[in-house]
Amino acid sequence: MSTPGYKSHISSAFNAELEDVRQRVLAMGGLVEQQLVDATRALMDLDGDLADQVRANDDKVDQLEMVIDDECSRILARRQPTASDLRLVYAVIKTITDLERIGDEAHKIAQMARDLSRQERLNHHMMETQHLSRQVSQMVRSALDAFARMDAEAALSTVRDDVKIDREYEALMRQCITYMMEEPRAIRRVIDLIWCVRSLERIGDHAKNIAEYVIYFVKGKDVRHTSLEDMEREVLGSP
Amino acid sequence: MSTPGYKSHISSAFNAELEDVRQRVLAMGGLVEQQLVDATRALMDLDGDLADQVRANDDKVDQLEMVIDDECSRILARRQPTASDLRLVYAVIKTITDLERIGDEAHKIAQMARDLSRQERLNHHMMETQHLSRQVSQMVRSALDAFARMDAEAALSTVRDDVKIDREYEALMRQCITYMMEEPRAIRRVIDLIWCVRSLERIGDHAKNIAEYVIYFVKGKDVRHTSLEDMEREVLGSP
Repeated sequence: MSTPGYKSHISSAFNAELEDVRQRVLAMGGLVEQQLVDATRALMDLDGDLADQVRANDDKVDQLEMVIDDECSRILARRQPTASDLRLVYAVIKTITDLERIGDEAHKIAQMARDLSRQERLNHHMMETQHLSRQVSQMVRSALDAFARMDAEAALSTVRDDVKIDREYEALMRQCITYMMEEPRAIRRVIDLIWCVRSLERIGDHAKNIAEYVIYFVKGKDVRHTSLEDMEREVLGSP
Repeated sequence: MSTPGYKSHISSAFNAELEDVRQRVLAMGGLVEQQLVDATRALMDLDGDLADQVRANDDKVDQLEMVIDDECSRILARRQPTASDLRLVYAVIKTITDLERIGDEAHKIAQMARDLSRQERLNHHMMETQHLSRQVSQMVRSALDAFARMDAEAALSTVRDDVKIDREYEALMRQCITYMMEEPRAIRRVIDLIWCVRSLERIGDHAKNIAEYVIYFVKGKDVRHTSLEDMEREVLGSP
């Protein structure tokens, strides 16, 4: 089997099951990525139909989460995996929770796009929001690429990106608040935009979580809640 | 063993391990509950020291999550549980993710309390926020009680409570927005309060998730992303 990072088994059926669950996570990831892109486009173009489509597709994300959870619990019961196989299943169980919540946030952005499409056009901070959304989408893609290749260094680079996202989020939030103070008439619309910006920041956090599960799988070490320096030491080795 | 809902094993060591992991989840739950109570009190009293204490205790929540995850993966590797034992471990893995995120939201509320303690006092909507916080705390407690007793009906009642929380959240949010429009000078402070209100609503969602894992454990059926009616049918049986 050519899949990187996990060993080949005497049971080819077990191999196939692990590969299948991995492929499903990537499919779920691809769908969630598309949801984020569509939700952002709905927001930029104030396209209510596209927003409705995102809402409808959220069910597919939820279904995939349930199917993969079910598959993982079957593998645990029947194959009783150990070592790196168990870490893979564990990483999958955690990853799909974050993917589902990225889907949820995309859904919320779509709902705000729907709301905003019914109001007077808001021109402020849309470009900055689009920019943040592109960065966040890129981060989700990187996390999924790292998962696909089970590449700890790529995962580390995804974790690093979250710092930039958080900085950009803070700056944009400050601008939105200042704008509301200058233009109280726009408050309702700016609040809708603020929810979108907040959702984008949360999506960055979820992508970071996924990257951390990749490091856990590859290195066998739980790096959540540790500093970036400790994570670098774990992934790149001692300086 | 007197623990409700799961069977006794020939291996008393295995029994002890399952009971231990269950107790740790309840300890983590107790800590998270206290964090929420303290964060809300810090917000109401604008008590910066208490806010700092919540911030410091968040590390303990994070550590408990990692310890329990480690314990679960050891149990999976060594005991290779099946049927209801496996469902228990699965429910624990999912539950602690939500508990950690409730802790995170309490931490965010504490940060906002810190921020607000440095600004002119905000008198509006504090009572309503406190009321929402009490309801949400009650919901977290119910979810943890349902988990402790592995009681699907109690879990169902927790899920039902989320509807009320969401309604109260929406009403409070509308009031906050109206107040900002009337009092643009207060925008910065109201936004801080809005983050707290949003965090409370998110905590309600996490408590609902925990309740759904209890139903999964007891009934062997994944009820996430289903309607309340379907959930009632699953838990209470056909009408």
